[in-house]
This record gives sequence, C-alpha cells and structure tokens, in this order.
Amino acid sequence: FTHSRSSPSCSSSVQLWTLPLPFLSKPRDFSVPNSSWGPEMMRLYEHYNSQCEVEMEGGGKREGLWRKLPSYNRILKYATGGVYLSKIIQSKARLFTRNIREPGAAFEYVLFANSEEQKCVGIFQAGHLLEGPPGHVHGGAIATMIDTVTGTHASMLSGPVMTANLNINYRSPIPLGSTVLLESCLDKKEGRKIIITCKVMSTDGSKVHTETTALFLSINVCHLLERA
Amino acid sequence: FTHSRSSPSCSSSVQLWTLPLPFLSKPRDFSVPNSSWGPEMMRLYEHYNSQCEVEMEGGGKREGLWRKLPSYNRILKYATGGVYLSKIIQSKARLFTRNIREPGAAFEYVLFANSEEQKCVGIFQAGHLLEGPPGHVHGGAIATMIDTVTGTHASMLSGPVMTANLNINYRSPIPLGSTVLLESCLDKKEGRKIIITCKVMSTDGSKVHTETTALFLSINVCHLLERA
Repeated sequence: FTHSRSSPSCSSSVQLWTLPLPFLSKPRDFSVPNSSWGPEMMRLYEHYNSQCEVEMEGGGKREGLWRKLPSYNRILKYATGGVYLSKIIQSKARLFTRNIREPGAAFEYVLFANSEEQKCVGIFQAGHLLEGPPGHVHGGAIATMIDTVTGTHASMLSGPVMTANLNINYRSPIPLGSTVLLESCLDKKEGRKIIITCKVMSTDGSKVHTETTALFLSINVCHLLERA
Repeated sequence: FTHSRSSPSCSSSVQLWTLPLPFLSKPRDFSVPNSSWGPEMMRLYEHYNSQCEVEMEGGGKREGLWRKLPSYNRILKYATGGVYLSKIIQSKARLFTRNIREPGAAFEYVLFANSEEQKCVGIFQAGHLLEGPPGHVHGGAIATMIDTVTGTHASMLSGPVMTANLNINYRSPIPLGSTVLLESCLDKKEGRKIIITCKVMSTDGSKVHTETTALFLSINVCHLLERA
C-alpha cells in the first residue's frame, strides 16, 4: 500500500541491490496485450492507447492526452541499509498483482493516466484464479485493483504515498472472466493528504460495481525502507 | 465477497455439477500446518487449536470454546441452472486466497471461531508473493484477508452474506514474511445487516496494523447463482 511511480531512490542509507543478470536487461512490462486478453480488454486498451500519441501534420507524432503506465512484477531496486528482511525474501518477492505467470489466470490489467484531467483509468480482466463467491471475483481482489489504480494515481500527483484509508462500497458483484473499467479521480489535495474517488464499472458504463473513497498520505519512502 | 459457511444448496434452478473424480474424495483442507509455517504461526495455531477440544475426567473429550474452520481452494458444488459462466472457467476457478500451490509463497492462514463470544480470529503468515511497497504486504492482500475473516464470521452468524462495505484504516505496514493476527468482533446485527469490526495486529498485540468496519448483507445465494 505504498505507491511510488518509479523505484524509490533515497540518498542516505539505501543502496542498490546487485540484480541478477537477466534483470540487468530491460524488465518485462506486463501491461501489454497477450493472448488471454478478450475482445473487451483489447477494445478498451486500443481506445486509450490510441490517444497516447497524436499524429501531427507532416507525419511526426506528439504526446497525446493519455499515457500508458508500465507495470513490472518486482521492485527493480532494493534497499539494503537497515532493512530487516532476509535477502531470500527480498529476492523472491513479487508484486501481489503480478505473481502468477499464466496469462489470463489472475489479474490482467493496464493503467492509463491523463494528467490534464488529473484522472487515471484501469482496465481489468479478472481471471479464474480470483474467485470469491461462486462464479464471481473476490472482494479482496477488487480491493487490490482499487488500491493499485488509486495508489498509482496518488503517487503521480504527490510522489511516494501510503494508503491510509480505503472505504469501498460493493454494489454489484463482478462475474469471473469479465472485464471492468476502474476510473480514479482526484477529489482533494491538502498538505500531505490526497483524497481520491474510484468507480469500478462495466465496460459500457451501465453498471457500477463498486464506489470507493481512498485517502493517501505522502511519505518519505526512505523511512519505510529503514524501519527496523 | 459473498460468503457462505458451506456450499450453497438452493432448491429451484441450481443443480450440482458432476465433479471430476479426484474431488469425490475428501477435499484438501489448507488450514493445517505445513513446512512453511514459521514459529509464530505454529505458536498461535497451537494456542487456539488446543482450545478446540477439552479433555474430560475419565479420558473423553468434548468441544471446546474455539472451533477450527476448514478452508478449501475451490467451491465443491457448482450451479448449472442459469449460470452464464463457461464451464471451463467454472472448472478452473480457484479461491483467490488459495490459488498458489507453493507452501508459504502467498497466503498462509487459518481461522478459528468462538461462538460463545461471537468472535472469529485469523492467523495469517504473509508470503513473498504478496508484496506491495518494498518489503511489505500489499494493501489489497491485507484487505483480502480482512474480507475473508470478517465475511466468514458474518456468514457464521447469518448464513450466506455479501460484503456491502469495507472501511479499512491502514495504520502501520506489515513486513513481508511476518505473521499477524486478525480479530473479528460482532458489532451489530439488525435485520439483513451485520456490522463487524476487525483489527489486524502484531502477534503480541503491541501493534495495530489496520482497523476495519465491515458491513455485510444477508442474501439468498440462489439469486447470485441465477443472475444472467
């Protein structure tokens, strides 16, 4: 529930871990289409992705209204100084939402940000390993996607943040296998506080599955890494 | 986010699925110790488990204050009538909290219930695949455990329920690999509503990681299965 747009880089006691060789190359971005993405997922992806670049007269391109955010399954820099976790846990750790390799089995998602409108959207296809009630997505899996989208949004607005409160109203269950849209909007920014609202909706916008208010606090990520 | 203590059994349009042969035998209970459980997890397990049976004079045993709740990774009965999910998704579906086979990698947990005090506890050891912020458990994974413990508790009090609201205050992050205690207490029961409070604490009770109020609504699980 701490979110930072990029890897944390702290000046004092935090050092870079030596990464195993395969990770010295460019890390894999999981937010790109794969064979498991259904037609709804692809349609929404194309909708936002096509607005990330605008063709100019003369053939050049410039940045569009939206920006696709990459998503990795591990933190690319590790802290050593002061960190109490074993190196084994650190090296095996994987982001909760990207911890299953089989495409389509769990969380398939991609985030887009619109800095002009201070909005963020997530397109989420819920795989069969996310079951809660029979045939439907687990409330915790939905909370996880809400935390991911709103947390990423908050960190884009304020740098590293921590989730302080999630208040989620579950209105209508989400069938396993379906694709939904998460829409995150800035409500208020006040000192260290960022308040964000988020709706999870059917892809045509006709049904609201959940409504959330989320509170984030700006943090100095070094404190988190130094805790003993 | 619908919780029912046992598998749903509805009278009208819902039928049992023919289960594949291996599941006709007794399903595996995941709430028992395995080699990944650390000393804290074992200590708390023994603490509650030893109170599930009381030795009587003469050598017999009777039920104790606490009861261990079993936990499976799939729903043991399927609905066919009216259900719009493909049979492939139904057959591959696994409970979100039990979807990873490697012991200790993700959610290790066990729930105990105390019907006299209307309390429920969860002992939770957070594996390395649940990472959110560097070295700490993802806020969504914590929400998932809260939904699991409070939802199970609510369904014990009222039969099948659905999560209507989760209001989670995150006070202190949980280091990856650590064991925490979830304590769920009935606050109020009023018509279809069940309000439950839940604390996630360090195992010695000295630190509160999260505080939650959860609202559940009693449902007729047949409606969920019949939705088209």
